[in-house]
Amino acid sequence: MPDLEYIFHPGSIAVVGASPNSGRTAAFLGSLIQFDYKGKLYPIHPKASEVSGLKAYPSILDVPGPVDHVICLIRAAFTPQLMTECAAKGVNLVQFFTAGFSETGEEEGIRLEKEIVEIARHGKVRVLGPNCMGIYYPSLGISYQPFFPKESGCVGFLSQSGGNSMDLVMLGAARGVRFSKVVSFGNACDISEADLLEYFADDPETKIIIGYLEGTRDGRRLVQALQKAAEAKPVIMLKGGRTEAGTKAAASHTGALAGSNVIWESLFRQSGVMQAYDMDELIDLVLLFQHLSPPQGRKIGLIGIGGGSSVLLTDSCAEERLIVPSFPDEVRRGLREIIPKEVDPGTTVRNPVDLSVLGWNPDILSKAIQAVAAYDEIDSILVHFGLHAGALNPRFRKSVAADVDALIKAKRNLNKPLVIVLHDDHVSEVTKFSSDIQERCRQADIPVFPSFNRGARAMSRFVQHYER
Amino acid sequence: MPDLEYIFHPGSIAVVGASPNSGRTAAFLGSLIQFDYKGKLYPIHPKASEVSGLKAYPSILDVPGPVDHVICLIRAAFTPQLMTECAAKGVNLVQFFTAGFSETGEEEGIRLEKEIVEIARHGKVRVLGPNCMGIYYPSLGISYQPFFPKESGCVGFLSQSGGNSMDLVMLGAARGVRFSKVVSFGNACDISEADLLEYFADDPETKIIIGYLEGTRDGRRLVQALQKAAEAKPVIMLKGGRTEAGTKAAASHTGALAGSNVIWESLFRQSGVMQAYDMDELIDLVLLFQHLSPPQGRKIGLIGIGGGSSVLLTDSCAEERLIVPSFPDEVRRGLREIIPKEVDPGTTVRNPVDLSVLGWNPDILSKAIQAVAAYDEIDSILVHFGLHAGALNPRFRKSVAADVDALIKAKRNLNKPLVIVLHDDHVSEVTKFSSDIQERCRQADIPVFPSFNRGARAMSRFVQHYER
Repeated sequence: MPDLEYIFHPGSIAVVGASPNSGRTAAFLGSLIQFDYKGKLYPIHPKASEVSGLKAYPSILDVPGPVDHVICLIRAAFTPQLMTECAAKGVNLVQFFTAGFSETGEEEGIRLEKEIVEIARHGKVRVLGPNCMGIYYPSLGISYQPFFPKESGCVGFLSQSGGNSMDLVMLGAARGVRFSKVVSFGNACDISEADLLEYFADDPETKIIIGYLEGTRDGRRLVQALQKAAEAKPVIMLKGGRTEAGTKAAASHTGALAGSNVIWESLFRQSGVMQAYDMDELIDLVLLFQHLSPPQGRKIGLIGIGGGSSVLLTDSCAEERLIVPSFPDEVRRGLREIIPKEVDPGTTVRNPVDLSVLGWNPDILSKAIQAVAAYDEIDSILVHFGLHAGALNPRFRKSVAADVDALIKAKRNLNKPLVIVLHDDHVSEVTKFSSDIQERCRQADIPVFPSFNRGARAMSRFVQHYER
Repeated sequence: MPDLEYIFHPGSIAVVGASPNSGRTAAFLGSLIQFDYKGKLYPIHPKASEVSGLKAYPSILDVPGPVDHVICLIRAAFTPQLMTECAAKGVNLVQFFTAGFSETGEEEGIRLEKEIVEIARHGKVRVLGPNCMGIYYPSLGISYQPFFPKESGCVGFLSQSGGNSMDLVMLGAARGVRFSKVVSFGNACDISEADLLEYFADDPETKIIIGYLEGTRDGRRLVQALQKAAEAKPVIMLKGGRTEAGTKAAASHTGALAGSNVIWESLFRQSGVMQAYDMDELIDLVLLFQHLSPPQGRKIGLIGIGGGSSVLLTDSCAEERLIVPSFPDEVRRGLREIIPKEVDPGTTVRNPVDLSVLGWNPDILSKAIQAVAAYDEIDSILVHFGLHAGALNPRFRKSVAADVDALIKAKRNLNKPLVIVLHDDHVSEVTKFSSDIQERCRQADIPVFPSFNRGARAMSRFVQHYER
């Protein structure tokens, strides 16, 4: 059992500062109700007798049974008293949504943070935050946003920023990423990024670790924790504060001591940790680790619809140092039998293969994939096609759906990684249809990317990770 | 009048190879009908007496009146005969959708292309293509896709790839880019990229020129045309075939002689042409030129909702060499009056300004924008916020809409460029809402970007263009 395991299994949670008609209460208490959390739930409010349909108590000391976990929404000035009560009540963990502590850079906030940590240490209470969103653990019904996915997954995520944790959970959700546990840890006055990395390294529910980090209070421990985690599982970190201006912003956000970017870069590299440079890239990478086995190498076979898009995709692959090998005569002859020139002179049987409009024929598509996959000098296959909202008539929808069936079927008989670039107009008429395709692909373990360069970049970095 | 003006004003168009129940006919003939093209339309089919509700003729020689423009959908082998007929009929322009010419790299295709060019020259017929989609000129009701926007704009677009031209028109349409004229010119056997650049340079309907190019048959003329165009208007080119593998793919796509990327890069730079590296970047850039006046410099004020996202945005800006200057005390004091710490301790009055949840208050948002804009050392302002599909309840929608009202109002009184990063989950529930916001911003000349790094990169390149 990892040391911190117990903080993820509260039998009861009190929300201090819960009040009717409050957005915060809707997020924190509302999520637990929405997620059907099985433990006991206690709203704490000085006067209200009921909040969100639950009996409320004036203080946690008034709660009849034990309280394992406290979520604190009250103002910073009142937190030392609350912490004293938590210690007295035998609370395991207090999570402070409350801000106004060391991240302000001001004397009073720094003093308050020190004070609550001191009381917590004496009382054997662990602290999460302050200035954080807390824990999302869907399989136990714990969440801090009612709209997070209820389904569990294999990705453990630690985030110094609450807002970024929400953005990333939702960006991931839309792409098919599901989480084992997410912890937003804010100022990290007690439970730190290193504690969480060590926890996720040992957590059997977590297969991939991702993180958003702004800085650390203990570089040496963080290095050890990153190494331990990266030895156990793929670890991908998004570092906020990579530039001088970003570091200043981070300092006023979580009070993080960021240090020089050169040090962070080499620290990640030496630990075997992948660094993502924006939220989209983080999700692109985790998708590959979630769905694919390690690829054999950098040689990629490209199959798709459209000559110009084949050119741009090939450029993206080559610029990301993927190799787009030429096909030998026998592979080209095999492809020519599948897509006869007489039927469509716009087709190309070189790598990239352009099926032109014949690509909308599911039989031709799957045969072409098989033919390319059969070539020894290809390590992975990327299929690409585009969707225009205006073209989405019922007949075309059917033919796209049949192509996706064919892709999923082809994938089952394939011993090489298959990824898709599905690019569209980003308008709602087509995003719904695209989402459904992505969801089907997710279930078939086929990662889907929204653009050539993002697909190429992610694949290249995925291969690179295993080349080390 | 630019030389080529007459090819954009056909009084009559014949579609050769139009046939009932054909996808190509639906695209070419169907678009002209859909766009309410005012000239005469003649489907040409060996046997049918009617196609798409229009009287059909067995050959263009059988058409009673003049034929200015021919769209050719028949097989390559039959095109020399058609071209002879076009010369006899006095046709101005033949556009070949037909593929199977020099782009195949095969003797027969190369010979056929030479043959049609020869007949065309003798007969004083201009040729567009072959292997292309032709002309989209919405204000005259000419289009090659029925779903293209009917509304005109100021962007002239020349594309060597038909597929990429469609992707870019639709990607642009979704972002608020509108086109004066688009020409997909394929193999460029007669009308070349240089001809079109010179045309757009002189075209009063075109304020910005964009292009997708794979190669050229006449480097010297292209250089002159690029220089002429870039002296007249902003020119942004997306080059396909930037890598060895991409160049090979381009050769089999449009038969383009691509040459080394180093030469292209320096050619663009020396001509004052901006190079985009993917389709998204091309649209990001054109959006700025479409909406904004030249900015004064690289100093940007950042205002938004969320501490972690402020940090990541600041990193993106700094990595793209935008400057995020610290605010002096008086600016910070002014901002503190607008967002008192007592109301929300999570706010920050440094640059980046984090309004936290107070950012959803339109009055606070517009006052904060004014306060930042009033600071001399800021050249442009970027406002950012995120939308989660799950959070889009009616109350939140209203508050976002009110914020957008405030932004549009604030923009009117601003003498500095204002751009927005609006990031969302990319799911259909939120893309519809996002699209509506983008459309309102487009009408108010406010460019909207979907991510921090894309917004930062585009702004930096936009400033750089005017620094030259």
